[in-house]
Amino acid sequence: MKLNADVGEGFGPWSVGDDAALMPYLDMANIACGFHASDPDGMDRTVCLALDHGVMVGAHPGYRDLEGFGRRSIPHEAESITRLVAYQVGALQAICDLHGAQVEYVKPHGALYHDMMRCEATFEAVLTAVAAMPGHPALMILAGAQNEKRKQMAECHQVPLLMEAFADRAYSDGGSLLPRGQPGAVYASTQQMVDQVMQIKTSGTVTSVNGREFPLSADTVCVHGDNAESIAAVARIRKALQTG
Amino acid sequence: MKLNADVGEGFGPWSVGDDAALMPYLDMANIACGFHASDPDGMDRTVCLALDHGVMVGAHPGYRDLEGFGRRSIPHEAESITRLVAYQVGALQAICDLHGAQVEYVKPHGALYHDMMRCEATFEAVLTAVAAMPGHPALMILAGAQNEKRKQMAECHQVPLLMEAFADRAYSDGGSLLPRGQPGAVYASTQQMVDQVMQIKTSGTVTSVNGREFPLSADTVCVHGDNAESIAAVARIRKALQTG
Amino acid sequence: MKLNADVGEGFGPWSVGDDAALMPYLDMANIACGFHASDPDGMDRTVCLALDHGVMVGAHPGYRDLEGFGRRSIPHEAESITRLVAYQVGALQAICDLHGAQVEYVKPHGALYHDMMRCEATFEAVLTAVAAMPGHPALMILAGAQNEKRKQMAECHQVPLLMEAFADRAYSDGGSLLPRGQPGAVYASTQQMVDQVMQIKTSGTVTSVNGREFPLSADTVCVHGDNAESIAAVARIRKALQTG
Amino acid sequence: MKLNADVGEGFGPWSVGDDAALMPYLDMANIACGFHASDPDGMDRTVCLALDHGVMVGAHPGYRDLEGFGRRSIPHEAESITRLVAYQVGALQAICDLHGAQVEYVKPHGALYHDMMRCEATFEAVLTAVAAMPGHPALMILAGAQNEKRKQMAECHQVPLLMEAFADRAYSDGGSLLPRGQPGAVYASTQQMVDQVMQIKTSGTVTSVNGREFPLSADTVCVHGDNAESIAAVARIRKALQTG
Repeated sequence: MKLNADVGEGFGPWSVGDDAALMPYLDMANIACGFHASDPDGMDRTVCLALDHGVMVGAHPGYRDLEGFGRRSIPHEAESITRLVAYQVGALQAICDLHGAQVEYVKPHGALYHDMMRCEATFEAVLTAVAAMPGHPALMILAGAQNEKRKQMAECHQVPLLMEAFADRAYSDGGSLLPRGQPGAVYASTQQMVDQVMQIKTSGTVTSVNGREFPLSADTVCVHGDNAESIAAVARIRKALQTG
Repeated sequence: MKLNADVGEGFGPWSVGDDAALMPYLDMANIACGFHASDPDGMDRTVCLALDHGVMVGAHPGYRDLEGFGRRSIPHEAESITRLVAYQVGALQAICDLHGAQVEYVKPHGALYHDMMRCEATFEAVLTAVAAMPGHPALMILAGAQNEKRKQMAECHQVPLLMEAFADRAYSDGGSLLPRGQPGAVYASTQQMVDQVMQIKTSGTVTSVNGREFPLSADTVCVHGDNAESIAAVARIRKALQTG
Repeated sequence: MKLNADVGEGFGPWSVGDDAALMPYLDMANIACGFHASDPDGMDRTVCLALDHGVMVGAHPGYRDLEGFGRRSIPHEAESITRLVAYQVGALQAICDLHGAQVEYVKPHGALYHDMMRCEATFEAVLTAVAAMPGHPALMILAGAQNEKRKQMAECHQVPLLMEAFADRAYSDGGSLLPRGQPGAVYASTQQMVDQVMQIKTSGTVTSVNGREFPLSADTVCVHGDNAESIAAVARIRKALQTG
Repeated sequence: MKLNADVGEGFGPWSVGDDAALMPYLDMANIACGFHASDPDGMDRTVCLALDHGVMVGAHPGYRDLEGFGRRSIPHEAESITRLVAYQVGALQAICDLHGAQVEYVKPHGALYHDMMRCEATFEAVLTAVAAMPGHPALMILAGAQNEKRKQMAECHQVPLLMEAFADRAYSDGGSLLPRGQPGAVYASTQQMVDQVMQIKTSGTVTSVNGREFPLSADTVCVHGDNAESIAAVARIRKALQTG
C-alpha cells in the first residue's frame, strides 16, 4: 500500500506545506505542473526532493486557475482537456529530463480530478493524453465500486490505472467520499486515519460513516502534509504500514 | 536554405498573423509554447497545421510575459532559464506526442533570444535545457562571425546548432543586425529581401547597410507573416529559392 | 435609443475588432477592465478614443479568465463577485481620472452578465459593488419582461438601471435571447438588425423568432464591431436612428 | 514617527506573514494591489483588517509579476508606469469604497520603488498617477539627502511626500541603503532596529555602517512582519516609540 501526497504546490514567492518534512514518508509524489500551482523552478525543486528520497514522480495537472488553486470546475471541450493534461505532463517530464528522471503516473488535481470521475468524456480526454505520453505513465483514479467502465476504457488506451483511497476522509454507504461540507467528512484523529489505512491494506475494506463495511481495493492512499500535525499523522501511518 | 517563421503566437481568443496562409511556404515552424504567447489549444492547432504541410516543428520558448509578448528582458538566474526552456519544450513535445510528431529544434523568442546571444551564461543555460530533451533537438541561433565560442559550448553539450539569417533585416558592418530603431533596419521592399536571401544562399555573404560585403553562413532564413503583404513576400522568397 | 458596444478587448500585443472605426457610431463604450481582456495601456487607449468621440465610458468587468475571454462561468462566492466588480470598475475609474473622465455605467461581461441575469445572489453582489462606486454609475442589464424584482433590488441600492436590447440577436417567444447555438439566433442581415432596432425604438416591441410581437422597453441597443461588415451594419443602424 | 509595513501580500490560496498579528503595531498599511501579489478578496480582507485596527490604508502597487513578486525590474514606457500605478491605486480605492475608506498614500513596491528612486522619468510617471487620484493621496519615497529635485517635482504635481526610513537596514556613508547582499546590510538584532528607529526619531540622524552619523529626516519607518520573530521586533519598536 503506497502513500501518495500532493506536493510542490507553491507558486513564485509562495509556498504551502513543508514538502521537505513530508517527502521522507511518501512513496509517490504528485507534483503540481504550473496550472493550478507551481512554476518551472518549483517543479525542479520538488522533483529533486522526490529523487533525493527515492519517491516516484507523478504529474499533478489541474485547470489553469492559480487564483482558485484548481478547485473550481472550469468548462472545457474534451479536446482541450486532453491538451492541457498533455501540456502539463510534458512540461514536468522535461523538468525530470534535466535529472534523468521519469514521470511514472498522472493524478489530475482538484476540480479536474472530480470532473474526470464524474464525466465520462472528461475521463476519456484525460486517458487520451496519458496514453500519448512516452514512458507509459499510469493514471491514478478514485478507488471504488463503480470503476468497471473506467477500467475498460483505460484498457482500450493501454493505460494502467492506480486506485486511490483516502486516509483522512470518511466514506458514504455508497462507497464515495463524503462531501467535505458534511460533519465527520474529514478525520481529525490520527488514530482514525491509521485504522482506515490499515483496514484497507489488511482486509481490503472500508467502514462507512454509518458503520457499513464494504470492499475497497486500493493501490495507494492519499495523505496530506499541510502542517506539522498532519505530517506527524503521515509519519504514524507510514510506521503502521511498515510494522503492520 | 530553409525558411523559418514564428507561428502560433495568439493567445486564448486572440490571434496574430495568418498562419494558415503562411505555413505552405515554410520549412520550419517556430511554435510558441505558452509563456510569451499561445496555450495548449493554440499549440495543438499550430502543430497540426505544420504537420499538414510537412513543416518541421520547432519550439519557440520565451520569457513568461504575455502582456509584453516576451519582448522585455526579465532578470533570471541561469538555472531558471534552463528550467523555463525545458518546461516549454517539454510541453510542446507532449502536444506533438498527441500526433506522433517530434520537436526537432528550439529557437528562443524575443528578449530570451537576444539575451542568449548577449550573455554566455544564458546561452549555457539554454544549451543545458536543449541537451536534456529526448529526441536531440537542435538549437537555432543568430548566424554571424562571433559564434566560435558558442559552437564549442554546443559541441560540449552535443547540441547541433542551426545558424539563422534574416530576410528583412539590414546588417551592420560588424555583422550584427542593425537595431530596429535605426533607419533602414527593416526592409520594406520585397526585392531587397529576395536579393538578401539569394545572396546568402548562393555566395554565403551579406552586404551591410554601408555596402560592405562579409561572409555569412546560414542554415535557415527567418521570415515574417504578420499580414497579407509580408506573406506575399515570403511566397516570392520561396519561389526564388526554388527556381534560383 | 443609445448604441453601446464592447470595446478595448485586446490584451498586450493582441487586439480584436477595429475600435477606431466603430467608436464614431457609438453612444456608450463598454470598456474591458483587465480581467477577461485589456490591460492598463489598452484601457487608457480606449478611454481616450471614447473621449475623442464624445462617447460615454462604461466599465465592462468580467471573470478573471483571459484564456477563456470571460465566457466561462467560474464559481465564486457572492462577496467575491462584489470585490472583483469593484476592483475592475475602480481600476477603470483611475484610468479615467488621468483624463478627467468618469465611469458612467457598468455592464458585466460574458459569463458574468449571464450569471447576473440568472442568479439573484450574483445580481445582488454586482449591485452592491456598483452602489459603492463614487459617481453613482448605472448598471446595464438585459431588457425583458422579468425585471420587476431586479428593479426593486436596484432601487434599494439606489443604482439606476439601463435596459439593454440586442440588434443582431433573435428573441424567443418568452422574451429572452435565443441561445447562440439555435438556427437564426444571430442575424446575418443588416436589414434585420436595422428593423429590430427601429421597432424597439418606435413601437417599444420586438417580434420573436416565431412571429410573436411582445413589448420590450430598452434604453440602449448592443451592437458589435468585430469586422468591417459588422461596422458597416452599425453605421446603417446609426443612420436609421438619426433619420427615423 | 509612524510605522509602516507591506501587508496583504498573498495570492489566491497562498499567504505570507501573519498580517493579523502585525497589524496592531502599525500606523500605515501598504496593501498589495494585485500585480505583484494579492487579488480582490485578499485586498478586501486586508483593508478590513487595517480598518479594524485604525491603521491608515496605503496602496502598494508593483510591476505585474506574480511569479517574481514584483522584485524584477521590467522595462516600461513612462506612460505605462503611470497607467499601471493608476490602475492599481484605483482598484484598491474601489475595495476601500466598499467600506467607506480612503487610500491615503501610495508606496510603490519592490523593483518599481527602486526604479522610481533611480530614474527621474519613472518618478515623474508615478507622480502623474498619484496626482490624478481623487482624495489627494501622498507618495512615500526613500528618505535621504538627495531628494531636493524630487521634492520640487512633487510640488509641481501638488503631491505630498512621505519620507521613509528603514528599521532593519544598514545605511552606507552616502546615506543610501546598503545593498542586501553586503554583510551587515540587514539587521538581525532587534536592539539594533530599536536603536536606529529611536535615533531617527529623537535626533533626526542615522549612523552608517562605517560609524558616520548623518542627518535623516523621516516621516515613517518601514518594518517587516514575515514571521513571529520579526513581529516581536516590531512590537518592541512600537513600545520604544510610545515610551521614548
